[in-house]
Amino acid sequence: MHVVMTAAGLGRVEDGAVAVLDTPYPDAGTLIEQTGSLESLAAARVVRRVPLTEDEVLPPLPRPRALWGVGLNYRCKAETTGRPLPDEPILYLAAPSSLGAPGSPVRVPSGRTAELDYEAEIAVVLGRPLYRAAASEAWDAVAAVTAANDLTARDVMRATAAPVLAKSFPGFTALGASLLGRDEIADSAAIGVRAWVNGEPRQDATSAAMIFPIPELLSRVSWYAALRPGDVVLTGTPAGTGQDLGAFLTPGDTVRVEVDGVLPLTNRISA
Amino acid sequence: MHVVMTAAGLGRVEDGAVAVLDTPYPDAGTLIEQTGSLESLAAARVVRRVPLTEDEVLPPLPRPRALWGVGLNYRCKAETTGRPLPDEPILYLAAPSSLGAPGSPVRVPSGRTAELDYEAEIAVVLGRPLYRAAASEAWDAVAAVTAANDLTARDVMRATAAPVLAKSFPGFTALGASLLGRDEIADSAAIGVRAWVNGEPRQDATSAAMIFPIPELLSRVSWYAALRPGDVVLTGTPAGTGQDLGAFLTPGDTVRVEVDGVLPLTNRISA
Repeated sequence: MHVVMTAAGLGRVEDGAVAVLDTPYPDAGTLIEQTGSLESLAAARVVRRVPLTEDEVLPPLPRPRALWGVGLNYRCKAETTGRPLPDEPILYLAAPSSLGAPGSPVRVPSGRTAELDYEAEIAVVLGRPLYRAAASEAWDAVAAVTAANDLTARDVMRATAAPVLAKSFPGFTALGASLLGRDEIADSAAIGVRAWVNGEPRQDATSAAMIFPIPELLSRVSWYAALRPGDVVLTGTPAGTGQDLGAFLTPGDTVRVEVDGVLPLTNRISA
Repeated sequence: MHVVMTAAGLGRVEDGAVAVLDTPYPDAGTLIEQTGSLESLAAARVVRRVPLTEDEVLPPLPRPRALWGVGLNYRCKAETTGRPLPDEPILYLAAPSSLGAPGSPVRVPSGRTAELDYEAEIAVVLGRPLYRAAASEAWDAVAAVTAANDLTARDVMRATAAPVLAKSFPGFTALGASLLGRDEIADSAAIGVRAWVNGEPRQDATSAAMIFPIPELLSRVSWYAALRPGDVVLTGTPAGTGQDLGAFLTPGDTVRVEVDGVLPLTNRISA
């Protein structure tokens, strides 16, 4: 199932249009928290069909509670930066107030960063709790996948060594623009993720290049903390960020992130 | 106002008993998120009075979204550990799933830590949003104060250097047992905080000994992230933790944390 939130309500993306559904759930986040998946939408009655207008979709997960992330999780990124492959994933939480919406501008926090950078990522949304789980159990606990731009103030990261501070400014965890149910993903190790800045391609990889593949990564988080339905885990970014190219984002730039099967996530940087 | 949650509903603590209130809010967390303070309870009709039974109170904040904390925020702790005073607060987030309830056992995550430690702390609950705020504005944004036991796996901290991993096991962020409204706190720099383990006194200090006083600490968090109503900030622990004494917690131990004006927070450690 491919699900999108519109002003008319929650809908399925079908044949390039939105089938708006008769569902009691106000949004997909609530649906996933309460039912563990997007599946109940398959049988929902179609109220009407509206055109799919990418710049009008609403945040698919308006109030996620935990936003986990991982530093350096692609082999290409390790090679580009010259850093050794980590033995353990470098895990962090971003503040829930850092959530950014598809199509919304991201403000540069003036005076706090001169090195604003994008990170295209595959984000997974938990449908079932996971605690001290094996990697073999982890993928089945995922409800859906979406695209993320895990924006990072590189200078704040260097100064504080704290991902939570470099990645928690308002709008820095942009998620969307739609959710693809796990049932539509044949292989968690073959999901493509790409980024463009002002139309120029910058990142292009698949989850096959991850150091800790998605199920292993979820298992590792669950060694330390209980993941709950609705929690989001960002799974790392491949090579090609501004850090790698020596070019940071400035007001007016537009970043577009694509994850296979999901509507693109586009955000403009503003002053 | 001194507010407690009981099975009979939300109430005021008055003369050692609970005045259960006629209020539409299901819990104090929702009340604070929606009204910014505990104040509307002052005028609420008393439905009945029930005895205050400390081991029957419920979590005052059942679903906080952000749980911020700070490493090394008391001068006595820095002296005891021999660490220099930090120039910047060492900020972290704990997972929301680490929330622990007053009176509830905290399980040692078996095989993951041999150095479970307590940290008695003053926790503040935000009532109003704060972003890029001055210290002079920050205290007015606080709705209430409670006690916290910021449990920490010292060996996980040493191995990962990530507070988020050392402090996010289930139950490791115990909060309660009641909330004291900001209006009852004359001076944010004169709040006492104490801990006992199995009845032995271990920690005893006041917020006067903080390196970053509460308003300054809130301001510093708000330099990097937007704090929202209902968010909780743990403000650091004084000297006297198990780390300082070379004695860690084991199953059967009971930790009691007291913060001035708030019901004690007691948790037993279990296997």
